[in-house]
Amino acid sequence: MQCVKIMFKLIHKEKNSKARLGKLNTPCGEIDTPCFMPVGTQGTVKTLSPNELEEAGVQVLLSNAYHLFLRPGMEVIKKTGGLHKFISWGKPILTDSGGYQIFSLALLRKVSDKGVEFQSHIDGMKHLLSPEDIIDIQCLLGSDIMMPLDECVHYPCSKDQARVAMERTIGWARRSKVALSQIQKSKSQNSQLLFGIVQGATYEDLRKECAKEIIDIDFAGYAIGGVSVGEPKNLSNDIVGFTAKTLPQDKPRYAMGVGLPEDIVEAVGLGIDMFDCVVPTRYGRNGTAFTSEGKLTVRNSPYTDDLGPLDKKCQCYTCKNFSRAYLRHLFNSEEILGLRLVSLHNINFYLGLMRDIREAIKNDRYTEFRKDFLKSYNNPYEQVKA
Amino acid sequence: MQCVKIMFKLIHKEKNSKARLGKLNTPCGEIDTPCFMPVGTQGTVKTLSPNELEEAGVQVLLSNAYHLFLRPGMEVIKKTGGLHKFISWGKPILTDSGGYQIFSLALLRKVSDKGVEFQSHIDGMKHLLSPEDIIDIQCLLGSDIMMPLDECVHYPCSKDQARVAMERTIGWARRSKVALSQIQKSKSQNSQLLFGIVQGATYEDLRKECAKEIIDIDFAGYAIGGVSVGEPKNLSNDIVGFTAKTLPQDKPRYAMGVGLPEDIVEAVGLGIDMFDCVVPTRYGRNGTAFTSEGKLTVRNSPYTDDLGPLDKKCQCYTCKNFSRAYLRHLFNSEEILGLRLVSLHNINFYLGLMRDIREAIKNDRYTEFRKDFLKSYNNPYEQVKA
Repeated sequence: MQCVKIMFKLIHKEKNSKARLGKLNTPCGEIDTPCFMPVGTQGTVKTLSPNELEEAGVQVLLSNAYHLFLRPGMEVIKKTGGLHKFISWGKPILTDSGGYQIFSLALLRKVSDKGVEFQSHIDGMKHLLSPEDIIDIQCLLGSDIMMPLDECVHYPCSKDQARVAMERTIGWARRSKVALSQIQKSKSQNSQLLFGIVQGATYEDLRKECAKEIIDIDFAGYAIGGVSVGEPKNLSNDIVGFTAKTLPQDKPRYAMGVGLPEDIVEAVGLGIDMFDCVVPTRYGRNGTAFTSEGKLTVRNSPYTDDLGPLDKKCQCYTCKNFSRAYLRHLFNSEEILGLRLVSLHNINFYLGLMRDIREAIKNDRYTEFRKDFLKSYNNPYEQVKA
Repeated sequence: MQCVKIMFKLIHKEKNSKARLGKLNTPCGEIDTPCFMPVGTQGTVKTLSPNELEEAGVQVLLSNAYHLFLRPGMEVIKKTGGLHKFISWGKPILTDSGGYQIFSLALLRKVSDKGVEFQSHIDGMKHLLSPEDIIDIQCLLGSDIMMPLDECVHYPCSKDQARVAMERTIGWARRSKVALSQIQKSKSQNSQLLFGIVQGATYEDLRKECAKEIIDIDFAGYAIGGVSVGEPKNLSNDIVGFTAKTLPQDKPRYAMGVGLPEDIVEAVGLGIDMFDCVVPTRYGRNGTAFTSEGKLTVRNSPYTDDLGPLDKKCQCYTCKNFSRAYLRHLFNSEEILGLRLVSLHNINFYLGLMRDIREAIKNDRYTEFRKDFLKSYNNPYEQVKA
C-alpha cells in the first residue's frame, strides 16, 4: 500500500451540497479541511509572525518555490535544514512551484519541453528550470505538499492556446511524478506529497480531458489551476464546479488562488477542500478589513471617531484591543502597526470562517450557513467594494 | 503634604558612582529606575504592539502631545477616555510637550511670550499653542507624567541665544505649573505628574542658573533638555554630568533623548534615572541590531548564511526563533516582519540593559558593570558603526 493513498481521510459528506469535511495528513501534521492557507510567498506571511499565525489557528502555510529559489537561494535554506526551520514554522507548508509567477513576473521567458527559461524579476539573472528542477527544489525546501510546474494561461485565452498549455502541463506533471518517485526511492522516504494540477482555461471539455490524464498519473491531491486569473466571478465558479465533479472523492481538492470569503463559501459547496489567497494580508495592508458584515475600509473618514472594533463578533487581538478610530489613525499616520493589526484581523477572520464552514458541514447545515453568511456579508458598511 | 513629594522613592545610592536605584509612582503604576521609555510619538512604538512591549518588560512609554494634538486630534482621544485607552496601553505614559518637534518640524513658527505659533508639518494648518494649552492637552491625554513647553536650541548656539531660550523656558515652566495646579484644584485630583526641564545649551553657568530657577518652582521630577541635539558625545556627557549635580536627590532625573546604550550606561553613572530614545526602533527598521557585543547590521552580506541569532545572550522572540540569515533575507526582500523582529529585539536589548544596570547598582558594582559592558560592547562584529 502506497503512503499517498492514506493521506486524506474524508470524514463527512454534507447532505444537501457537495461540501466535504476531511483530514489531510502531512509530514508536519494534520490539516482539517476545508482549510485556508495564508500566503507566505517569500517565507513570511506579510507583516505577521509565525506565533500570530499559530494563535489564529493556521494549520498550513503556502510558500513559493520560484521566489525562494531566487531569494534567498537554496544554499542557505539547505544549510538551515529546510524551509520550516528557516522561517520558524513547525506545521505543514505547501509550496507552489511558482509556475504562475514565472509566467507573470519573470522576463524574457522561453517555454519548451525542457522547461522554462526566464530572467529573474529581482536581478535579471537567466535561469532554466525544468519540471524536475522544481521537484528537486521542493524536496530541499522540505515542503509537506508540493506542486508540479504547470503552465497557467491568462484570461481570456483561445482554445488552441489553452490546449497547448494544458498538454504541456500534463507532460510536466508526468515527469514531476517520476522525478519525485526517483528521489523518494533513493532516500527510502515518501512522506512529501505531490499534487496534480488541472488546467484547461475556461473550456469544460479541456478541463475534463486534463483531469482524466492527471488523475491517471495518480497524485496525492488535485488542484484546479488557472482560476482567479482575471475572469468574471460566475465563470470562476463554473470552472471550479465542473472541474470538481471530475475529481476523485478520496483525494483533497485545492482551488488555487481562491479567494474572497464569498468565493470560498461558494467553492466549498462545490466540493473544494483547500484554498489560498493573498487578499487577507494584501487588503489588510491597504486598510480593508473583512468582517462578518462585509468589507470595511478603516481608512475612510466615517471611522474617525468610531470607538467600536473592526468586527463585534471577532475575538482576535486587534478586535479585543483597538478601535476603528485608532486603526484609522495608524493608517493616516503611516504606522506599520496598522498594517499588522488589520492583516492579523483578516487572517483571524479567514480562519474563523473556515472553522464555521467545517462546523456547518459536520452538522449538515451548509445550505443555511451559506445563505446566512451571504446575507450578513452582502450587507456591507459601505458601497465601495475594494 | 503634597502628593508630588512622595512620588519618587530613592531606594539605593551606589557606593562608587552617582548611580541611583529608585521607584517612581504614577497614576498607572510603578516604574523602576533607572528606566528606558520606548518612544511612541504618534501613539505607537513603531512596528510593535502593546503586548510585545509589555512582554519585553516596558513599564512606561513616551508619547508626544504636539503630534497627537495635530493627529488624530484631541476630540477622538477625549471621546475614547484618554490616550491609554486609545492606544490600549494600561501602564504609565510620559508625554513630551512636543516643544522640540515644534521647533524642528513645524513651519513658520513665531515664538513669543504667548507661546508658539506654527504651521502643522502635516497639513500646513496654523496653530498657536501656549504653555497652558500644552498642559490642557496633556491633562486630556491623561499622561502620567507631563512635560511643560520649553524652547530647545540647536547645537551650536551662542550664549545670548541660549540665555533667551532658557529664560523663556523658565517663564513657561512657571506658567505650566500654575496651569496644572488650577486644573487639578478644579478636579480635586493631583495625581498626574509634571516635570521641569533644565535648558541652557552647552553653558555650565546657564545650566546652573536654569536648574536653580526650575527647582525653585518645584516639580515632581527634573529633565535635562537640549542634549543629543547634534553636539559631540563627550560634550553631552559633560552637560549631563554638571547638570545632574545641580538637581535634588529626592526627585527623578530624566535625560531627554538619551540615547545609545553606551550613553545610557555613562549617564546612569552620572546620576540619571530616566531615558528615552528613538534609536532601538529606528535602527531596528534599518536592520541594525544592538547586541551584547555591539551593533550588528544584519543586512550586511557576512550574515547571508549565518544561522546564529542576533545575540546569543538574548532570550527575546526574535533571538529564540530566527537566524541572522533569515532576518537578512527579510530585509533584502523588503518584508515588514524584518523591521518588526529587529525592532523587537532592540527594545528587548534596551530593557534587558536597564535590568542589568539596576542589578549592578543594587549590588554596588556599577563601576565593574560599566567597564565590562563597554569592553564587550566596544568589540563589535563590524567596524562600521551606523
